Amino acid sequence: MIRVGIYGATGYTGFELIKLLQCHPHVQISFATARSAAGKRLSDEFPTLIDLPIIAPEAADPATVDVAFCCLPHGASAPTVMQALAAGARVIDLSADFRLRDPADYERWYNAPHPAPEMLDQAVYGMPELYREHIRDARLVANPGCYPTSVILPLHPLARAGLLADPVVIVDSKSGVSGAGRSLSLKTHFGETHETFSAYNIGRKHRHIAEMDQETGARIIFSPHLLPVFRGILSTIYVTLKPGVELAAVRAAYDIFADEPFTHLLPDGRLPELRYVVNTNLCVIGIQPVDVDAGRYIIVAVEDNLLKGASGQALQNMNVMCGFDETMALT
Amino acid sequence: MIRVGIYGATGYTGFELIKLLQCHPHVQISFATARSAAGKRLSDEFPTLIDLPIIAPEAADPATVDVAFCCLPHGASAPTVMQALAAGARVIDLSADFRLRDPADYERWYNAPHPAPEMLDQAVYGMPELYREHIRDARLVANPGCYPTSVILPLHPLARAGLLADPVVIVDSKSGVSGAGRSLSLKTHFGETHETFSAYNIGRKHRHIAEMDQETGARIIFSPHLLPVFRGILSTIYVTLKPGVELAAVRAAYDIFADEPFTHLLPDGRLPELRYVVNTNLCVIGIQPVDVDAGRYIIVAVEDNLLKGASGQALQNMNVMCGFDETMALT
Amino acid sequence: MIRVGIYGATGYTGFELIKLLQCHPHVQISFATARSAAGKRLSDEFPTLIDLPIIAPEAADPATVDVAFCCLPHGASAPTVMQALAAGARVIDLSADFRLRDPADYERWYNAPHPAPEMLDQAVYGMPELYREHIRDARLVANPGCYPTSVILPLHPLARAGLLADPVVIVDSKSGVSGAGRSLSLKTHFGETHETFSAYNIGRKHRHIAEMDQETGARIIFSPHLLPVFRGILSTIYVTLKPGVELAAVRAAYDIFADEPFTHLLPDGRLPELRYVVNTNLCVIGIQPVDVDAGRYIIVAVEDNLLKGASGQALQNMNVMCGFDETMALT
Amino acid sequence: MIRVGIYGATGYTGFELIKLLQCHPHVQISFATARSAAGKRLSDEFPTLIDLPIIAPEAADPATVDVAFCCLPHGASAPTVMQALAAGARVIDLSADFRLRDPADYERWYNAPHPAPEMLDQAVYGMPELYREHIRDARLVANPGCYPTSVILPLHPLARAGLLADPVVIVDSKSGVSGAGRSLSLKTHFGETHETFSAYNIGRKHRHIAEMDQETGARIIFSPHLLPVFRGILSTIYVTLKPGVELAAVRAAYDIFADEPFTHLLPDGRLPELRYVVNTNLCVIGIQPVDVDAGRYIIVAVEDNLLKGASGQALQNMNVMCGFDETMALT
Repeated sequence: MIRVGIYGATGYTGFELIKLLQCHPHVQISFATARSAAGKRLSDEFPTLIDLPIIAPEAADPATVDVAFCCLPHGASAPTVMQALAAGARVIDLSADFRLRDPADYERWYNAPHPAPEMLDQAVYGMPELYREHIRDARLVANPGCYPTSVILPLHPLARAGLLADPVVIVDSKSGVSGAGRSLSLKTHFGETHETFSAYNIGRKHRHIAEMDQETGARIIFSPHLLPVFRGILSTIYVTLKPGVELAAVRAAYDIFADEPFTHLLPDGRLPELRYVVNTNLCVIGIQPVDVDAGRYIIVAVEDNLLKGASGQALQNMNVMCGFDETMALT
Repeated sequence: MIRVGIYGATGYTGFELIKLLQCHPHVQISFATARSAAGKRLSDEFPTLIDLPIIAPEAADPATVDVAFCCLPHGASAPTVMQALAAGARVIDLSADFRLRDPADYERWYNAPHPAPEMLDQAVYGMPELYREHIRDARLVANPGCYPTSVILPLHPLARAGLLADPVVIVDSKSGVSGAGRSLSLKTHFGETHETFSAYNIGRKHRHIAEMDQETGARIIFSPHLLPVFRGILSTIYVTLKPGVELAAVRAAYDIFADEPFTHLLPDGRLPELRYVVNTNLCVIGIQPVDVDAGRYIIVAVEDNLLKGASGQALQNMNVMCGFDETMALT
Repeated sequence: MIRVGIYGATGYTGFELIKLLQCHPHVQISFATARSAAGKRLSDEFPTLIDLPIIAPEAADPATVDVAFCCLPHGASAPTVMQALAAGARVIDLSADFRLRDPADYERWYNAPHPAPEMLDQAVYGMPELYREHIRDARLVANPGCYPTSVILPLHPLARAGLLADPVVIVDSKSGVSGAGRSLSLKTHFGETHETFSAYNIGRKHRHIAEMDQETGARIIFSPHLLPVFRGILSTIYVTLKPGVELAAVRAAYDIFADEPFTHLLPDGRLPELRYVVNTNLCVIGIQPVDVDAGRYIIVAVEDNLLKGASGQALQNMNVMCGFDETMALT
Repeated sequence: MIRVGIYGATGYTGFELIKLLQCHPHVQISFATARSAAGKRLSDEFPTLIDLPIIAPEAADPATVDVAFCCLPHGASAPTVMQALAAGARVIDLSADFRLRDPADYERWYNAPHPAPEMLDQAVYGMPELYREHIRDARLVANPGCYPTSVILPLHPLARAGLLADPVVIVDSKSGVSGAGRSLSLKTHFGETHETFSAYNIGRKHRHIAEMDQETGARIIFSPHLLPVFRGILSTIYVTLKPGVELAAVRAAYDIFADEPFTHLLPDGRLPELRYVVNTNLCVIGIQPVDVDAGRYIIVAVEDNLLKGASGQALQNMNVMCGFDETMALT
């Protein structure tokens, strides 16, 4: 039995994480914090029968936990992470603060100096399919962004196999509204989001590009769109592979995922839909050849942005760190 | 050609009203105000090609308009209404401030003394099907609430014909989210409203009961629910009529609406759906006998809460007041 | 480890049941049938990674299973039920064929003679909260309808405590579209169901009334409505209790459910929302006093129509029948 | 006053067209046909107060109308078109039968010989922005497909100005479910479409590519997706222009649309959303530079697939053909 604490319990990722943790047979939740809801109970914030007192972050003692999860916004997360590490806890940070290895990248994309550059070389990018061995012993795991998970998992095998002929990759992603968080904004007001669809921050603007470029070596042109559903991301990815690479060779690149519990390649001719993966920790991938002579393929990947794209992957990382079965509380 | 002004242009009712007014051949919009958006243009606030500068309410001169529309919250509306009347404008008030004839009712339901009780006997309840002749010459029209319109129109004929055996009427209403307005609130955040359904303020709690009781003479038990759609109200109304009243007699009570352009009774055996009326100014009514011997009937009524339930009815009132064809810009 | 078979695997209830059964540690699925999809695999029909071959019903041997689930339409179910019983299997029938104790009731509501009246006195109505002891040893369990579960659970305690002053109870129910099944129909075509809302079969018409009347002793006036969501039922129930019954006494009637794992009464002042229960086997109930002197209360109950309203309750029944923990594979 | 007839009145495009035509001051509907609904009224099929008898196609006499609209599936449309032309009617065909100038293209994409190749050189592609002068005198107008309208309008100005450096253009389109029509199919069943999102027929598979290639001279890689909304298409278009072309020069290419009533270019920095155009005949376009040196731009275009993408454009064509104001009944 390990003890865990959650900073930032009343956002969507915090709440999803608590739902998962409460079903984990080897986990005991020691504290859950939220500045705005301190003194309330979780059931005051969410329509749920799961319950828990919520405390102020200052009232939480990270020295009492084995693992601390930080579900705080970027920038705000780093100080809490540093404090928890100093208290001896291992940390899984769901913010962007420790995802980029180069502090110059952080500064360029987040318009601020990195808040704790000295920790960057100890942080491990928390995607088990790529860094499982490093995660096992990590004290600080930087949990990947939601969009990047849906892009790096399908692109990494192609990059690793040296199949990408053109570093420029067009990624047209569509995300459910929960990706925009639970803070109030006209952008996520029902009347402005329901029964519509829009693109935003398209081109080379969205901060998640930094992670995608870092982990794939590609130069991603990224078009996020807002879907009128609550959960899920579908990314349609346009790659130019080496001319003439046959479908069988493309499929073979994904053999490295053959034993992965949460990353699946569909059979030829099938493409994934969002509902395959909503409420699961899966990333499901389909491949469509377009012009084999020219190396043109389309890859479609889906995930639940709150699970494999956030809290599910965080729990998967915890399972790896603690030597539990990696799928525990995730199936 | 008449000139009109709109106070409160950036809420849903203000915006709907402007869309209608811009298509009206005899109307020229002199000003549109919104405190929070003063200095912007309407297209900065709404994804629209319709455009208009938005000014601060203080910058608007009601003396320049024939008709002023107040799309402000209750309590906040009355002072603006009084100022516009004093400047010589006729006023259509979409708030609740002048809907209740008895200031004691206002105080009981709105927990505050009436802001301008001296104007109450000049205000006309703006439901043309009931008060067309008074609206024609009114200087102040109190536009009905959204829920009450969907309840009073189907109940008034039964009350007027003396068919209601029991004053207690159960009204189970379901409204699209636009009824909760455009102000930010967790209640109308996409993630809290989408793909769910809930009851709220049920029993004898919702303020709109005051109007329903006043206009029908009944005692309404009212259960509002929040539908995961943007527009529309469907009210399912359980009445106990005099024992043995046949369906034909019930239908005959609705003959008073035979020439109404916007209130329709469906043929026997048909019930209205929300999509009949979304984006129209119609209220459509269906009747279902349950137990004729016991006088039990169910009446189902639908309307678009932003049109017949708010801005459409406001424009209908303006047409009546100004002697235009009552359906102008509404079909 | 028990062996089970599922007749009718490609409807929504069959598919939900299989998803649950595949997570049950003591269950092995021996067969899943569907006439129209015989020879295919489950993943050809549903976007899922769960997989299973589908066979024709004739190819299924009920003698090989401990428990057979019938997810077939009423009328079609009885012969299969009889055949499975004859082969020695215990049966959980999700159709309406064995829910009504009196064959005359069946004939009146289903317009056909009962297909196997001789079995009716052996069938147990499969609501564990009411009939747990009988379910334990039953050879045939008639799984309740979706609407009735959301009505009987909140009404039974009031009826049992003798609090209902008027047998007439108005039930205004709203169901997600999955309640209408997976067969093609314009009624469930996206364009006819999405972004709208409608009442249907209101009054004393819907067949589920027969179960509600039978199990509550009340005379239910029932108004079903179709919600534009996939899963979930919310029932708003208007009861007239004995004059002057205080809220505390009403709440006390629900004490019989105090130890129930899946039926919860909310604290005073809270009403349930659909999202409390979607994807759970819970029925959650809230109570709103309206006029205590007159005995007027409103009860609101929610459930997931595919779980507590169908396949979840079926699995709960199986757990009871087989002596497993009643919540196994349901939490 | 002209007389018109509609073949195929009970699909979504037929119904939308009738709604528009009934508001047109110079149009009288002589007949509306639908084989499956012959003998019924339009209000039996659609929840509408608009009404009209529906007759069998054989009972319609095209000699009695000035303009016949064919809202039939491809292949089925051509014989009716030929019959109406022979009877002296001018025809607007909403099917794909006469959109491709080269019968070999038809055969390649539709897997059948063209049903009436001798008419192809008289047919005009019905996009007024490109072919207004030819439409004016055309006897047969081939109304464009829904997806192609959202792609050709934004691409044509770039192609015409010679700015496209690479003929390969990636088009990632997302369409509301009404694009899949009103015929029953599991693909458009509520439970399979709601709250999900999927890609289909991606690459060089979808038949609408034929029109896009023909009218733009590009080679379109086309990825259609199904959005969980009823109406609207948003196309995200990735073009490679001549290296170094500045935004101002790109915008200037759209000057040819400056006087178009229904095609709008947004100001710099703004991208269109679906709700800008739902229930309008508009196509709204936004431009996002990505890498000017490399000529990389993204164009986003939106339209209502049932209006500018089908019936609205058909009526616009009729207005052009008959010398009416082009916007009549469309604003």
